[in-house]
Amino acid sequence: MKALTLNAEWAPKPEYQMSDRERETRKIRNGFMVWKNPSLDLGEVPDPTPEPDEVILEIKAVGICGSDMHMYEAADDGYMLYPGYVTAPNILGHEFAGKVVEVGSKVTELQVGDLVAVEEIQWCGVCTACRRGFVNHCQNMEELGFTTPGAMAQYTPVRAKYCWKLDEIAEQFGEEEALVMGAMVEPTGVSYQGMFNRLHNWQPGNNVVIFGAGPIGLAAEALAIAAGAGKVIMFDPSASRRRVADDMGASASLSPIDIDLDEAILELTLGRGVDYVIECAGVADKTIEPLNRCLAVNASIIDIGMGGKRPTLPTVTYKQQGVQLAGSLGHSGSGTFQNVIRLMAAGRIDMRKMVSARMPLDDALSAFKRLESREDAKIILQPN
Amino acid sequence: MKALTLNAEWAPKPEYQMSDRERETRKIRNGFMVWKNPSLDLGEVPDPTPEPDEVILEIKAVGICGSDMHMYEAADDGYMLYPGYVTAPNILGHEFAGKVVEVGSKVTELQVGDLVAVEEIQWCGVCTACRRGFVNHCQNMEELGFTTPGAMAQYTPVRAKYCWKLDEIAEQFGEEEALVMGAMVEPTGVSYQGMFNRLHNWQPGNNVVIFGAGPIGLAAEALAIAAGAGKVIMFDPSASRRRVADDMGASASLSPIDIDLDEAILELTLGRGVDYVIECAGVADKTIEPLNRCLAVNASIIDIGMGGKRPTLPTVTYKQQGVQLAGSLGHSGSGTFQNVIRLMAAGRIDMRKMVSARMPLDDALSAFKRLESREDAKIILQPN
Amino acid sequence: MKALTLNAEWAPKPEYQMSDRERETRKIRNGFMVWKNPSLDLGEVPDPTPEPDEVILEIKAVGICGSDMHMYEAADDGYMLYPGYVTAPNILGHEFAGKVVEVGSKVTELQVGDLVAVEEIQWCGVCTACRRGFVNHCQNMEELGFTTPGAMAQYTPVRAKYCWKLDEIAEQFGEEEALVMGAMVEPTGVSYQGMFNRLHNWQPGNNVVIFGAGPIGLAAEALAIAAGAGKVIMFDPSASRRRVADDMGASASLSPIDIDLDEAILELTLGRGVDYVIECAGVADKTIEPLNRCLAVNASIIDIGMGGKRPTLPTVTYKQQGVQLAGSLGHSGSGTFQNVIRLMAAGRIDMRKMVSARMPLDDALSAFKRLESREDAKIILQPN
Amino acid sequence: MKALTLNAEWAPKPEYQMSDRERETRKIRNGFMVWKNPSLDLGEVPDPTPEPDEVILEIKAVGICGSDMHMYEAADDGYMLYPGYVTAPNILGHEFAGKVVEVGSKVTELQVGDLVAVEEIQWCGVCTACRRGFVNHCQNMEELGFTTPGAMAQYTPVRAKYCWKLDEIAEQFGEEEALVMGAMVEPTGVSYQGMFNRLHNWQPGNNVVIFGAGPIGLAAEALAIAAGAGKVIMFDPSASRRRVADDMGASASLSPIDIDLDEAILELTLGRGVDYVIECAGVADKTIEPLNRCLAVNASIIDIGMGGKRPTLPTVTYKQQGVQLAGSLGHSGSGTFQNVIRLMAAGRIDMRKMVSARMPLDDALSAFKRLESREDAKIILQPN
Repeated sequence: MKALTLNAEWAPKPEYQMSDRERETRKIRNGFMVWKNPSLDLGEVPDPTPEPDEVILEIKAVGICGSDMHMYEAADDGYMLYPGYVTAPNILGHEFAGKVVEVGSKVTELQVGDLVAVEEIQWCGVCTACRRGFVNHCQNMEELGFTTPGAMAQYTPVRAKYCWKLDEIAEQFGEEEALVMGAMVEPTGVSYQGMFNRLHNWQPGNNVVIFGAGPIGLAAEALAIAAGAGKVIMFDPSASRRRVADDMGASASLSPIDIDLDEAILELTLGRGVDYVIECAGVADKTIEPLNRCLAVNASIIDIGMGGKRPTLPTVTYKQQGVQLAGSLGHSGSGTFQNVIRLMAAGRIDMRKMVSARMPLDDALSAFKRLESREDAKIILQPN
Repeated sequence: MKALTLNAEWAPKPEYQMSDRERETRKIRNGFMVWKNPSLDLGEVPDPTPEPDEVILEIKAVGICGSDMHMYEAADDGYMLYPGYVTAPNILGHEFAGKVVEVGSKVTELQVGDLVAVEEIQWCGVCTACRRGFVNHCQNMEELGFTTPGAMAQYTPVRAKYCWKLDEIAEQFGEEEALVMGAMVEPTGVSYQGMFNRLHNWQPGNNVVIFGAGPIGLAAEALAIAAGAGKVIMFDPSASRRRVADDMGASASLSPIDIDLDEAILELTLGRGVDYVIECAGVADKTIEPLNRCLAVNASIIDIGMGGKRPTLPTVTYKQQGVQLAGSLGHSGSGTFQNVIRLMAAGRIDMRKMVSARMPLDDALSAFKRLESREDAKIILQPN
Repeated sequence: MKALTLNAEWAPKPEYQMSDRERETRKIRNGFMVWKNPSLDLGEVPDPTPEPDEVILEIKAVGICGSDMHMYEAADDGYMLYPGYVTAPNILGHEFAGKVVEVGSKVTELQVGDLVAVEEIQWCGVCTACRRGFVNHCQNMEELGFTTPGAMAQYTPVRAKYCWKLDEIAEQFGEEEALVMGAMVEPTGVSYQGMFNRLHNWQPGNNVVIFGAGPIGLAAEALAIAAGAGKVIMFDPSASRRRVADDMGASASLSPIDIDLDEAILELTLGRGVDYVIECAGVADKTIEPLNRCLAVNASIIDIGMGGKRPTLPTVTYKQQGVQLAGSLGHSGSGTFQNVIRLMAAGRIDMRKMVSARMPLDDALSAFKRLESREDAKIILQPN
Repeated sequence: MKALTLNAEWAPKPEYQMSDRERETRKIRNGFMVWKNPSLDLGEVPDPTPEPDEVILEIKAVGICGSDMHMYEAADDGYMLYPGYVTAPNILGHEFAGKVVEVGSKVTELQVGDLVAVEEIQWCGVCTACRRGFVNHCQNMEELGFTTPGAMAQYTPVRAKYCWKLDEIAEQFGEEEALVMGAMVEPTGVSYQGMFNRLHNWQPGNNVVIFGAGPIGLAAEALAIAAGAGKVIMFDPSASRRRVADDMGASASLSPIDIDLDEAILELTLGRGVDYVIECAGVADKTIEPLNRCLAVNASIIDIGMGGKRPTLPTVTYKQQGVQLAGSLGHSGSGTFQNVIRLMAAGRIDMRKMVSARMPLDDALSAFKRLESREDAKIILQPN
């Protein structure tokens, strides 16, 4: 079958303290410390066959994520930009949907023909974190498309337990659109997890501030609107991203550069301040850190974006206003995929609004090229 | 000033065990046991003056509620239909909005010119229930328009602490519409309280079943849609009410008569069942009681509607599926008015969709007459 | 190895509608409809060998549960009393602790020598209920000691993912006592799940009423005390059980027969009423149903006990007082075993107080005999 | 009557930007910027008379708090140490209990003879924060014993709505002890609010770390133990305070100076880490900031202690482990006083363990003198 493979040279930086397990498996916790001169190769690879607990999916739609770009791009020293858990060579692609074409011998919950979206987080279900219900913090986590073969290919094997049916969307929008929408369940789930599965205190009517209008921030925006936000205020330095945010229904979209965030937020909320802050920009020291007078009593801050420096926080204000802050990561557990799928099926969110192009897998290399300029919010590849 | 007064004869039924306090205050816990031959009178009454903690409102919009109808209507024996806490004579009207025209000496939070909606529940703030935060269960509760003068009048005095500003709506929709929308914050708040302040487990994506498409049920529908419901299935025996429910965006609206509720709900949810049930029909023995196979794991049942017989419940299923049930009442506390106002301001809900007529206070008697047929969902009187 | 096996005759009642799967597997959903003339046999069976995801435990302590008694006892018509999911022949025993003596090839979280307690609920981790985190409502559930071989034997194979280490207890109390305490994690977990993982609204200081002073009710009592209850009021018709409840620290223990529950509870709480009701008696129609005036504002009712008739509930009171009711079942997920183990390790609960005897496995038959009189709260068998 | 009055000179520092309201009322937001040369005077003042919504209490027990010491003590420049909201001259004392001896004309919930503890936070009940239920964040807050007359006197007038009856304690321990225990409801409530009314995710079995073994930290310790903590690990530089912490049941008490907090906590928890961190030391930059590897999945951090520099926090870890942090302040609302009183009545906590002396009001000056050395945890004055 055809597949898009990430290649890179094994060149551990001398200062990197590699574990035995990393050396053995070549799955590296901090990719940019080891992998050099990354490149993409669109070519033939063997067809997959399912393990007993797996299904084989015919891939119908797969999005290109910022992480995909960071695995493909290199810094000036030639090392991969991506700082996280990654192996090479490996087939990319972790935001996707497909159709079941083969079913492993022990799979009971899926049948050939089912349309599904798939969790990227390959939680074990056995470690203590998983058994306590915190599968996003699985102690044995693998990541599909990072450390196991991904979905920028004609077919992918996935464990049945990571698959969620798209029948509710298909009933309303038909198979083809269900599969495109299905490819965006994963990134939308990341925002859903932060907003609705961490502090459990969302209230319809909350005023919302979102930092970052990339895919995660835009998903947060769509979810905030769908879940009954009052004002939804977006901050992003990029004018083109703010335009998408406006089109998706933001109350206001502003550049955060050189403005007094407190003042801007107070003015836009008629002095009442913000109830829910969602950090999707990865620079908490520039976004969360300055928020002070604009925090309403009982304000909540959800920190999703990875990156940036450690923020120095006004904890006296957090006491005086009764503020809470939570880190969030992942999209698994708690039925998040089911809920995102239902929101799509009911037409409460339509993440297709951020898709700027649908392209065949054959055009994958040019799609990556095009994304280097960061003008597009999301490109969807359609391998089949 | 002009006002619509409810009159009734003091005629305690012999079997009614009246408390000393009821006899003294003529505020009767079970109205239909005491008040006979109710009638309405539109006439002149003295202008109100504010107590130190009160404001005087010029009433701009006041809805006629089912309870208003039940105070005005009599059973065959001549006794008032309304079974709850009520006095007479008294000015009716508890769903309303107005403009502050005078401010008591100790009021600091409001100014002349402010537009406000007002809580019907006159909680004391001093009893243990209030101090624990459960103001809807105030042990010294009075009810505006039932046991204290209401808002079907040109002016009404109200304590400042029951008032919530409508400036956020006015910013978006202008003063006049803000006041009409403001008159529906109270009934919408009743549904909000049940859905978002009782079990604290609402999740966007939940499939919802609502019993009753009267104003409370329709408000629940609007809120469910605004808060990101999956399917929203309405049940009401009245075809005209189901039509309104459909217009407001229901996934399906059905008559509950002579159907298998479990089967209907399972079919409409592709077999997944219901996550959130909201009882707004007041017949739990006919609505909640039969639900069994259609209850999804972790389903929640919110019981708002007063009336009907005690339901006999399938608690084995509640164990097997992990179901919870909560009674709910009121709309005060927890910032519910603020949240409902924000949802209106952001355009997430528009309760004007259920208003069939706006009429001057002079037409109040004909409005009540017209509502006897229960064809209208909501009529708004505009005294000024 | 030596094991205690439950035998019974296959004699389906004519009216029982058996599924194909039941016929195939001989695992019957409603045991008392099929199994006749149950008996116990203490004899030799083959030693177990582990599947790749299993460990073999040397069983050190296993409790005899009420369900064990109901599988062993027959009604007048000769059919097994137990109404639930059960097969035969099968080794009994699901409340137990043991030492790992062999480890399957894929097990990474356990080592030979580890002491563990084991979940009875054999959740699949793959169905939608499991993936949403509601593993107690697993759609493919097996039950250890009911439909899979249990622990009244020298050795038992169990999946590693159901095992929880007892090292925290052993650190404080030594190995031997850790294993006896460990055998009671399972039943204690059933109460923990109901009290702390269902409504998430427990508050230290809550007044508590518990119906039933059998092992689940006594565990609820111990947990209520350990979690900071105000008054803890126990109801049980048996004087000897009430004595144990008193010894474990109840504020009061009463017979529920022929008394006004509301009045008794109000008197014992100085008029403030009950905040948390826990049904462990299995007769909701006699326990939950009559509670009315004694329910404090925001009272919660947790219904754990299986059995009895459907209760007819005062839902008007539930609205007026803001009451919630939840069914509960199981002990898996949410880290319940870890939390119960910690409570034991810290000495906050000591379930050994309800153990009336420790006996070798060789005395199993006489232990069952002795328990027929229901004088003992709990007997622990020690196979090794 | 006799009373202990705090005097100080009005000497605003030139750089202090005083509001008009501060100038008018002499209630200063940042006391140490205005008040110089504080001193105490034990003398005669007029007896209080109640407003209509007040009662007069005969004061039976009043604790000396760290804040009292900071109002009485001066820095090298002669200015009062206390940095918060304070006026002078004013009667000190805000941790107290007394007996109702006179009742205002509109008070219905209290009678002469009632024993009560009193909230220090004088919330208005009218501002938006109060009406949303967040009374600890009242926008018009006064503080009893800081900006209104306190309880180091024979009698004090207090609004009935701030009083909570001690009858449940008196039933168990008698009147005298109920009043001593009652004087410690206020500081204990501060810890209760942080632990049980902020994140609503406490679970019995949680491992707990508490920074600071002053009265708030010791109350947190007592509450953690009463609410079913696993390990309770205390950190305080003072050996004598650690001794009290040990006596009250800590699993371990350590000096935080020059140790690796992560390592110490991991070792004491057998590698599992901490679930609940409670900051009562007022130096978040030295306590919360260094915590990293020791944070268990889903760990919660409650920040109560005022003071210190803004902490710089490891938010990447907060994401990877799913950590939440909440600021907390106050003790009002949510029935906290009722719950603390119940815990005392049931014997689950006994805050008398931290009382080192009970002294008559006549010895107040020597009590303050004695406390300068910070050897005592708590001294109780008994004015009557």
